[in-house]
Amino acid sequence: MKKINIGIIGLGRIGQIHFSNLKYCIPNANLVMVADPQKAGEFNGVPIGTAEEVINHEKIEAVVICSPTDTHSVYIEKCALAGKDIFCEKPHDLSLERVVCTLESVKKAEVKLMLGFNRRFDGNFKKIQQLVAQNKIGDPTILKITSRDPGPPPLEYLKSSGGMFMDMSIHDFDMARFIMGKEVEKVYASAGVFSSNDVKEAGDIDTAIITLTFIDGSMAVIDNCRKAVYGYDQRLEVFGNKGMAQIDNNKHDTHLFFDQSGSHGALPLDFFMDRYVDSYKNEMERFVEALCKDEPVPVNGQDGLEAMMIALAANLSVAEGRPVMLSEIMKMNRVKQEEMVNRSIEK
Amino acid sequence: MKKINIGIIGLGRIGQIHFSNLKYCIPNANLVMVADPQKAGEFNGVPIGTAEEVINHEKIEAVVICSPTDTHSVYIEKCALAGKDIFCEKPHDLSLERVVCTLESVKKAEVKLMLGFNRRFDGNFKKIQQLVAQNKIGDPTILKITSRDPGPPPLEYLKSSGGMFMDMSIHDFDMARFIMGKEVEKVYASAGVFSSNDVKEAGDIDTAIITLTFIDGSMAVIDNCRKAVYGYDQRLEVFGNKGMAQIDNNKHDTHLFFDQSGSHGALPLDFFMDRYVDSYKNEMERFVEALCKDEPVPVNGQDGLEAMMIALAANLSVAEGRPVMLSEIMKMNRVKQEEMVNRSIEK
Amino acid sequence: MKKINIGIIGLGRIGQIHFSNLKYCIPNANLVMVADPQKAGEFNGVPIGTAEEVINHEKIEAVVICSPTDTHSVYIEKCALAGKDIFCEKPHDLSLERVVCTLESVKKAEVKLMLGFNRRFDGNFKKIQQLVAQNKIGDPTILKITSRDPGPPPLEYLKSSGGMFMDMSIHDFDMARFIMGKEVEKVYASAGVFSSNDVKEAGDIDTAIITLTFIDGSMAVIDNCRKAVYGYDQRLEVFGNKGMAQIDNNKHDTHLFFDQSGSHGALPLDFFMDRYVDSYKNEMERFVEALCKDEPVPVNGQDGLEAMMIALAANLSVAEGRPVMLSEIMKMNRVKQEEMVNRSIEK
Amino acid sequence: MKKINIGIIGLGRIGQIHFSNLKYCIPNANLVMVADPQKAGEFNGVPIGTAEEVINHEKIEAVVICSPTDTHSVYIEKCALAGKDIFCEKPHDLSLERVVCTLESVKKAEVKLMLGFNRRFDGNFKKIQQLVAQNKIGDPTILKITSRDPGPPPLEYLKSSGGMFMDMSIHDFDMARFIMGKEVEKVYASAGVFSSNDVKEAGDIDTAIITLTFIDGSMAVIDNCRKAVYGYDQRLEVFGNKGMAQIDNNKHDTHLFFDQSGSHGALPLDFFMDRYVDSYKNEMERFVEALCKDEPVPVNGQDGLEAMMIALAANLSVAEGRPVMLSEIMKMNRVKQEEMVNRSIEK
Repeated sequence: MKKINIGIIGLGRIGQIHFSNLKYCIPNANLVMVADPQKAGEFNGVPIGTAEEVINHEKIEAVVICSPTDTHSVYIEKCALAGKDIFCEKPHDLSLERVVCTLESVKKAEVKLMLGFNRRFDGNFKKIQQLVAQNKIGDPTILKITSRDPGPPPLEYLKSSGGMFMDMSIHDFDMARFIMGKEVEKVYASAGVFSSNDVKEAGDIDTAIITLTFIDGSMAVIDNCRKAVYGYDQRLEVFGNKGMAQIDNNKHDTHLFFDQSGSHGALPLDFFMDRYVDSYKNEMERFVEALCKDEPVPVNGQDGLEAMMIALAANLSVAEGRPVMLSEIMKMNRVKQEEMVNRSIEK
Repeated sequence: MKKINIGIIGLGRIGQIHFSNLKYCIPNANLVMVADPQKAGEFNGVPIGTAEEVINHEKIEAVVICSPTDTHSVYIEKCALAGKDIFCEKPHDLSLERVVCTLESVKKAEVKLMLGFNRRFDGNFKKIQQLVAQNKIGDPTILKITSRDPGPPPLEYLKSSGGMFMDMSIHDFDMARFIMGKEVEKVYASAGVFSSNDVKEAGDIDTAIITLTFIDGSMAVIDNCRKAVYGYDQRLEVFGNKGMAQIDNNKHDTHLFFDQSGSHGALPLDFFMDRYVDSYKNEMERFVEALCKDEPVPVNGQDGLEAMMIALAANLSVAEGRPVMLSEIMKMNRVKQEEMVNRSIEK
Repeated sequence: MKKINIGIIGLGRIGQIHFSNLKYCIPNANLVMVADPQKAGEFNGVPIGTAEEVINHEKIEAVVICSPTDTHSVYIEKCALAGKDIFCEKPHDLSLERVVCTLESVKKAEVKLMLGFNRRFDGNFKKIQQLVAQNKIGDPTILKITSRDPGPPPLEYLKSSGGMFMDMSIHDFDMARFIMGKEVEKVYASAGVFSSNDVKEAGDIDTAIITLTFIDGSMAVIDNCRKAVYGYDQRLEVFGNKGMAQIDNNKHDTHLFFDQSGSHGALPLDFFMDRYVDSYKNEMERFVEALCKDEPVPVNGQDGLEAMMIALAANLSVAEGRPVMLSEIMKMNRVKQEEMVNRSIEK
Repeated sequence: MKKINIGIIGLGRIGQIHFSNLKYCIPNANLVMVADPQKAGEFNGVPIGTAEEVINHEKIEAVVICSPTDTHSVYIEKCALAGKDIFCEKPHDLSLERVVCTLESVKKAEVKLMLGFNRRFDGNFKKIQQLVAQNKIGDPTILKITSRDPGPPPLEYLKSSGGMFMDMSIHDFDMARFIMGKEVEKVYASAGVFSSNDVKEAGDIDTAIITLTFIDGSMAVIDNCRKAVYGYDQRLEVFGNKGMAQIDNNKHDTHLFFDQSGSHGALPLDFFMDRYVDSYKNEMERFVEALCKDEPVPVNGQDGLEAMMIALAANLSVAEGRPVMLSEIMKMNRVKQEEMVNRSIEK
């Protein structure tokens, strides 16, 4: 079996998840070096270097980027220049222009770039996508996504997060494209601040309903909230002319308790660290597999770009109280026509 | 459309249910006269007479017997003599010998006798029976019935009820035969008094697990309790070599409420008056339909006899702490050999 | 017990439901006369007259209007003139101007007018409304309603229905106001024709996602379709800062069947005739009770007007591809300022 | 943090599960040496020796025994002699006499012995046990366990398995004691061969209903089958005077798909390797924790002995068609009176 030599940049919460999966669970991955400014020496038996050392390490074939968002584009470009394949956590960057530039570098360097939309690799969501792909639903005309966090991140994080749409809803925008298998044309978002003073202070929103219209007129609606007191709420439903499919949350356990006051059951799992634990493993497996077989990665840079444009359209929609066409976002950001015009064909 | 002229004896709780269904919901039933010692004149537009007047009324073709259990056999015999078809509430009688005698009179008079095992006509149980009949389950080898009342009846009722097995479990014994479509051979019951002082005072039991072995070795297990604080618990599961099917309780509503402490839902419906409302209507429809078309009734006297023998075997099993063969019950009660030996064929 | 003397105009599908409930299930209602151009003589023991005869019948105190929509306003006005209390099926009228005029007549005549938004009286929806009213949810910020019919009505009906929003979604618009207890300020609707050629021929839409923004910024989203192949889909979820509550469909039965291919259960009930059977009874009970006690009716003319304005706003939103303020609808229809400005206070 | 030096004997299916958990997931465990006659050199970085070498290794403080059942007693005795703490997979031994002897050696050596009843460490079952321990259920009077395997083991295995009760139901017998927190007094088992020719050839049974009566008269019923075509079916329900609690299976995913034929969902997880993956990890964590803190192990030798006696009683009950007292099993096997008489107190 071929082994891929891999380096990681960033050993925060998400970096350590990828570390464990690559080291203990994916036999054809070989961790060569990791980088984290907070750490030195070695981490669980893997030597620690600088980001530059990781990127330029002779043996390393692929780099997993888990550093803060504002470093992503720089590291992606450097990896591309060094001819390394890349896995990058979402979001790619908060600037659409920078994303477009970076993607050009990646294209020119002919390296692979996979974006970390891990939910695509969760068993529940994958099942729905399969039902759609198998035409069990017929033509999907209504997609509904409920995506609510158990609580908002700290104020500091909020301030540099790029806003709820870019930071949190972006997963749902990607999911909408993944399930429907079509591109979004128009975005209407209605939003407010209802549950968090920190969010208000950060000038962000914490609650929203976003309607997406796809190029064939079919629709998706996403409802988001930064704070659901009952836990991490991640559900989806897709409806078509042949049927409907939905997924419920994964719960702490399956118990039901009945007493005089009613029946009582468990809550959804707490947050993405326990809810999506398998998806992170599957995601990294698929990345390594794509490298081994020299196949296209399952989530590429264009996927990241599309989700980001939807987020920007949602921001504009809230600001101006009107539906926004994705073509407006492209023009405003001077996204090159030739890059975008055929975007649904390229995929 | 042919109409059947019907009389009712007894306008207690269950008698009034049958009254409403016959009068307002079953177009080919015509209520001619009703009898109840507590009532006089007319009841919702139907003249009230004595039981004798109902039984011997020239126009009346069928009598619905809802009077106290100890009068059932007498009225059945009188109806048979008068040539009237009969619907009788369960249990037929607390004496097996009397039941056997009565059934002979019914047979001789060539009238129809239907026993009130209403649960056979409930949508949930019917669905399971259909799945078994359609061979979706394969050969059913394990049947599980949970049947728990919300609370015990009053002490006075308990004293003359014939005991929990005869009064309450008898529905489950009939259900076991209905679902499995086979006769029971052996009964083992384990029981105790855990939830009610009245039950203790009445010398009865309130909690039991009863294992039935059918003539082909397949099995059923029934768990009963006179008191479930969370409501009327009526569930069933059947398992075979091709699959498994189960039914859950009907609930007050379908709501689920999630807060920080968990998820919370509705309880099962309160008791048979609301849980089995449709089954009573369906049951009476099927009775009237059988009369109209001159077809066999869907639950006959032999069905009542079989369920009763299981109840007696369960009583003996608890008393002697051992499994009891149904053949023992037949012998002890001098049930005539020719009546019983071919019981599963006769059906 | 006081009895209310009642007449019915129109004995179509819905008229006969009200007839049965009033005649057999509501003891303090007394059906005096009914009118239906297709029928003569008597109907189940109640004499049949003309609409005029019902409205002007000396004994009749209240009239239940179940005739075609285009006759509603005329009959309401005549009833008001005759001093009769009124129950009218939804929608009140397809013309907002006519509704406003009619409401003035009703007000002047000081009679009661109840609109037939029966879902408010369904156990599931009522439970959710109670949870909100009891502050279990906290401040409700997101309401989600799924409302899908099993199939579109016939082409002839579609042509005169007033469109999907006015004919079908209007129930959901009323439900949104009922659950949230606030008025709607803005409507954005996205819609298409995906499932029915008849709908296309009638120039209508059959699939929509409608976002409502309430006066305090909280939001509701409704998804509608005229054709769900799996049955009548009627669900709702409300989310707030203290919790979330949802209701599921009522199913044909509670069975679950497991075989090698998966688990299999029952579908939702077929359509409103079986799904909402209890709500119609409860609704009429509440109407009669309000008359007996001389209390306000639980759903009044203003409720009908509000739901209708939302439907008109949704129509305009689809036509112009933009969110529409309810205030625009009022102005366009010259709804008198003094009637509308305090609408949420009046209630 | 203190680290426990551990050896493993046997690297079959279950041995490898313990290996992975001890090596990768339990920080205070240190794997020193493993033994497996099929393997040589090292296993994932841990040197391989003989069983004797593992037991007598100077550094090793505790041995995890995962070798075939007929070697368990021998290895336990050797470990005890060597002063090593022991974790042993179930069943301890097929001979009750040998178990009793071994337990004496363990007692004399004053080492810890933990039995591998892993289900006690599963989140679902643990939740139920907690609800009982917190007195949410009140006095538990009825316990129901459904435990069905997806398919029987191979004929060779069946022949030396000790029979279904000893091999498979023993987990349920332990679970019954764990949940109820009381000792079993009487066992009645009804059984047959319905689903497997291999089982018939091995002279075993494949389907059973077992009623346990506890010392206070409360009851448990277990239904077992070696072959459930829809997967691994592991459910439990406990009922008491204050309420009822149940757990459902863990499923492959949470999807529900609705089409014209019904609703369709996922099946239970396939078998213990995926269903109980977390329980194995938790179990080993608890074992290591008990050693670190020098606390009693959570499942001890007496627990294994009790479950085994229930299995033997069930065997005798089927053979003789009667309920069997556990005291009979003790006498027949000459279990020493002083060991057994206070068994529920000792725990």
